[in-house]
Amino acid sequence: MTRAGTPPAARRGRTGRRPGDGDTRGRILGAARLLFAERGFDGATIRGVAAAAGVDPALVHHYFGSKQRLFVTAMEIPVDFDAAVATVLPGPPEELGERLVRLVLRLWEAPSMRGLMLGLVRSAASDETAAEMLRQLLAEGPFLALTRAIDRPDAALRATLVGTQVVGLAMARYVVRVEPIASADPEVLARMIGPAIQGYLVGDLAAFA
Amino acid sequence: MTRAGTPPAARRGRTGRRPGDGDTRGRILGAARLLFAERGFDGATIRGVAAAAGVDPALVHHYFGSKQRLFVTAMEIPVDFDAAVATVLPGPPEELGERLVRLVLRLWEAPSMRGLMLGLVRSAASDETAAEMLRQLLAEGPFLALTRAIDRPDAALRATLVGTQVVGLAMARYVVRVEPIASADPEVLARMIGPAIQGYLVGDLAAFA
Repeated sequence: MTRAGTPPAARRGRTGRRPGDGDTRGRILGAARLLFAERGFDGATIRGVAAAAGVDPALVHHYFGSKQRLFVTAMEIPVDFDAAVATVLPGPPEELGERLVRLVLRLWEAPSMRGLMLGLVRSAASDETAAEMLRQLLAEGPFLALTRAIDRPDAALRATLVGTQVVGLAMARYVVRVEPIASADPEVLARMIGPAIQGYLVGDLAAFA
Repeated sequence: MTRAGTPPAARRGRTGRRPGDGDTRGRILGAARLLFAERGFDGATIRGVAAAAGVDPALVHHYFGSKQRLFVTAMEIPVDFDAAVATVLPGPPEELGERLVRLVLRLWEAPSMRGLMLGLVRSAASDETAAEMLRQLLAEGPFLALTRAIDRPDAALRATLVGTQVVGLAMARYVVRVEPIASADPEVLARMIGPAIQGYLVGDLAAFA
């Protein structure tokens, strides 16, 4: 929570910031994640975030400037994609798609990550900053790390095809909550949707040329 | 455009409505579809719709009551799903998935249908009425008509699995606009995504039991 480049000791010494600053900033971010997840970018307000965090709206502006900057900071995904991808590589090659769906669902089932993902997907539906973040995540994020690691041609195309199915699963399960997808066991979903993902990862895409 | 149960002749007679009423209502609906498609349910306002239609906001309230009722009316999809499904059934059975993707893309490429679809998907991200409409469309709409027509077990499950991929394609192509999905030729997309849909339509779902 300390600013990059400033040694914590120096900032906490005689000229240090007020006690509780770190907590305040963190509390604002937590409240922002909740509100963005529930209402999307358009629906959440600085005032609402401040109220949920129990602070004055001026403090939110002080720490984050605009709602847009608050959103970008709150939506930073605390996951090392390369490390996550490395966990799905070992195992039978023909079950790679299944393992990827299992990983994605395991991440989403954690409330904090699900909040981030919902905030991003909900907001991307109506806000261009959020859409750009989701676009980057789909085009240059974990799916590209994976398709590069398996060294098949058309890695970028394969990654975005995987992205279409994964985003649709997120929409159906968590946003639209359509049954039986919404309540299905993650393991069962991995087995049902894994083959489609598998096709995108390693199937024959010659048709695209 | 006349109220149900009131014979048109009676309403257009001596006590008939003002000339131009039908146009006004239609103009409001057209403006509403545009605004819901661009901004989603939360972002669009009665005032904004009225301005876009060139009418007084009071007229929007007069015709539609609430924003919610305006949304539900504006988002009615003017497609006969059974008839649409009937067009994809003929042909090689192993290319059914491809034909379905081709149909969906052909519908979406028409600006009016794309507007409806975008309005529904964008709004479903943050509004419960819209989410319920999309939920019904996915669970009981064209995909269920198709899976019932092909008479495989687990028709409802298959339909929602198809829905996850189709909604994700809509998000990636039209909302997030991630490349190369956004600019890809519909025919090419049908060949790439068709096999995944095919698996959901007719593949072995024993794993789900």
